[in-house]
Amino acid sequence: MNIYLDNAATTALDERVLEAMLPYMKGHYGNPSSVHSHGREVRTAIERSRKKVAELLNATPGEIFFTSGGTEADNTALVCAIETYGIKDVLTTPIEHHAVLHTLEECEKRGHITLHFAKINADGEIDMGHLSEWIQTHPHALVSIMHANNEIGNINDIHVIGQQCKEHEVFFHSDTVQTMGHYVHDLKELSIDAIVAGGHKFHGPKGSGFLYLNKKNKIRPFIYGGAQERSMRGGTENVYGIVGIAKALELAYEDMEAHQQHVQGLKKRFIEQLKEGIPGVEFNGLSADLDRSLYTVLNVSLPPSEENSGMLLFNLDLNGISASGGSACSSGATVGSHVLRALDAQPERDSVRFSFSRFNTIQEIDYTVEKLKELYGVIA
Amino acid sequence: MNIYLDNAATTALDERVLEAMLPYMKGHYGNPSSVHSHGREVRTAIERSRKKVAELLNATPGEIFFTSGGTEADNTALVCAIETYGIKDVLTTPIEHHAVLHTLEECEKRGHITLHFAKINADGEIDMGHLSEWIQTHPHALVSIMHANNEIGNINDIHVIGQQCKEHEVFFHSDTVQTMGHYVHDLKELSIDAIVAGGHKFHGPKGSGFLYLNKKNKIRPFIYGGAQERSMRGGTENVYGIVGIAKALELAYEDMEAHQQHVQGLKKRFIEQLKEGIPGVEFNGLSADLDRSLYTVLNVSLPPSEENSGMLLFNLDLNGISASGGSACSSGATVGSHVLRALDAQPERDSVRFSFSRFNTIQEIDYTVEKLKELYGVIA
Repeated sequence: MNIYLDNAATTALDERVLEAMLPYMKGHYGNPSSVHSHGREVRTAIERSRKKVAELLNATPGEIFFTSGGTEADNTALVCAIETYGIKDVLTTPIEHHAVLHTLEECEKRGHITLHFAKINADGEIDMGHLSEWIQTHPHALVSIMHANNEIGNINDIHVIGQQCKEHEVFFHSDTVQTMGHYVHDLKELSIDAIVAGGHKFHGPKGSGFLYLNKKNKIRPFIYGGAQERSMRGGTENVYGIVGIAKALELAYEDMEAHQQHVQGLKKRFIEQLKEGIPGVEFNGLSADLDRSLYTVLNVSLPPSEENSGMLLFNLDLNGISASGGSACSSGATVGSHVLRALDAQPERDSVRFSFSRFNTIQEIDYTVEKLKELYGVIA
Repeated sequence: MNIYLDNAATTALDERVLEAMLPYMKGHYGNPSSVHSHGREVRTAIERSRKKVAELLNATPGEIFFTSGGTEADNTALVCAIETYGIKDVLTTPIEHHAVLHTLEECEKRGHITLHFAKINADGEIDMGHLSEWIQTHPHALVSIMHANNEIGNINDIHVIGQQCKEHEVFFHSDTVQTMGHYVHDLKELSIDAIVAGGHKFHGPKGSGFLYLNKKNKIRPFIYGGAQERSMRGGTENVYGIVGIAKALELAYEDMEAHQQHVQGLKKRFIEQLKEGIPGVEFNGLSADLDRSLYTVLNVSLPPSEENSGMLLFNLDLNGISASGGSACSSGATVGSHVLRALDAQPERDSVRFSFSRFNTIQEIDYTVEKLKELYGVIA
């Protein structure tokens, strides 16, 4: 058995996405900035991809900027909005992805901003009263709050936060890396300045991403160079990456409801079987709340166990099961999860993030539960 | 006929590079930061690629940082060296690629540096006396001078410049995008702080690049996020891009001498036939000097002609020949070439950059000359 339950870290590239990319890795190799036929055919592919992404998100093509991934898109939105607008106060959460957290910490270190934090409870829920008050008292500030947490799956209500930010002219950025391609984003219905995507989180290619920037904003580029991306990002475009991320998003939207149901079903079954099978099992954050967390993420807290303490991921791996301890988005993650620390998770318990995709099966879930039961001595 | 003579803009992906990349677009899709087997196999591929690049350049793996391309690598070296070291004076040339020029202009605009320019003559040659004096009088400054110009092909002596910079503790960066994979870089023999590469310039993938940063330097990251690239570049690695650029560099070094001879032969033949066939033909910069310019680039200046003025690239395209007016690395290049402007090129003449690769043939060169002769009325 070889079971991949680490889809919040990265997903398998969909074969149909690869198929869409391959022509641009073979015959259509021109530079999209070239004016000759080799260039024009590639330019057309990029603009067709931009139009597709914009259509799916109910945005306009001029609001989509392709990047090398979600992290670069987050850096662009945050660093360049802060510098362009001279923003002095920024609020975020202590459980953001490092692409946001470390970027903002650096902005503070350079003396550009004062960094404030939303209050969260032990389940990672944001204190909306405090947030609302902060927004009211910090007009023209910047708020960066992720749509959904990559470790514990908590979903934040970006519609409500966006509305409040709009009223007080606060720049609102949301790291939507974990929801893009998994939920519908309708940017006509959502008051927001910037959201981002990383292609490899929804069966698109690594090294691809995009920034949606509401057309009312005009910020400076992050990477300087040629006039690519309407002078917003220098560097020859990663043509296959762009074609791939657009195709992946298209496929995600085509069958979204069916995938949601399938994956949500797996998660529900997993929760039920764990509760039944492993005495003392708990779930971190809101991840066991099917309505308020990502259907793709379940963060399981297991009781102290001599055989598994600090070895659980290794033991799962030996049994052919790939999962993650906290977030796998950071290499050599021996420092542990800043998210679980912020929730005051009990350090003597082992936490594992299982994350699912449409390629997972019921059999894989059942097998994983059986192996966990074996590891925890529930089956002799 | 479909003739691609725009290889300084981008090159065709080598089939063997694609072959090396494909496994990482199919079965081996893990996140290299994950500790399980899916992640480890991918991590191994990245580190193997880093080691290969380091070996070829006679550097150490710890000095190689993978990026999304040459432009990001240039931005990283310049912005982060300037900020980390508090560098106040920077010298560059007026004919640098925009990845360097616009980045430094932005640093000046933000008040971080004063930007100085090397003196160049009408052929784009650097006044080495002036440069040497500048370096001597600006210890702890930064010098950024490209190894070879992407439009006119001039090669600068980065060994001599590097030695002078070293003596005066000046940070020396060189945009080596046009020479990487086309010439041997031996970083034990070269005194330099930073050089860069873009994979797609030597039959590797778009969206891939790297920064070589001499190990004596420790600069801040450009993109903040996870701990990837030893905390020097946040964001899930573009695994296929990394595997691809390393493979492309390996292939480039394997047959470099043979390719140099082949391509240099094409360029020599092209020059000779143009001189014979088109009265009044000239060559911009040093590009007709086989010893002092890239063997891959020839910048041709054609006499004024009513039929072709402003239409030459279009006329060539109609005849199936893809070439570039100045640099194609910038989209919608209606503003003309800043390089040719800096050389005081005569605006009534049409300039075309022809750039060659190992995939070009003698037949293609001969056909192109015939078509140019037709366009210029040399053949009735």
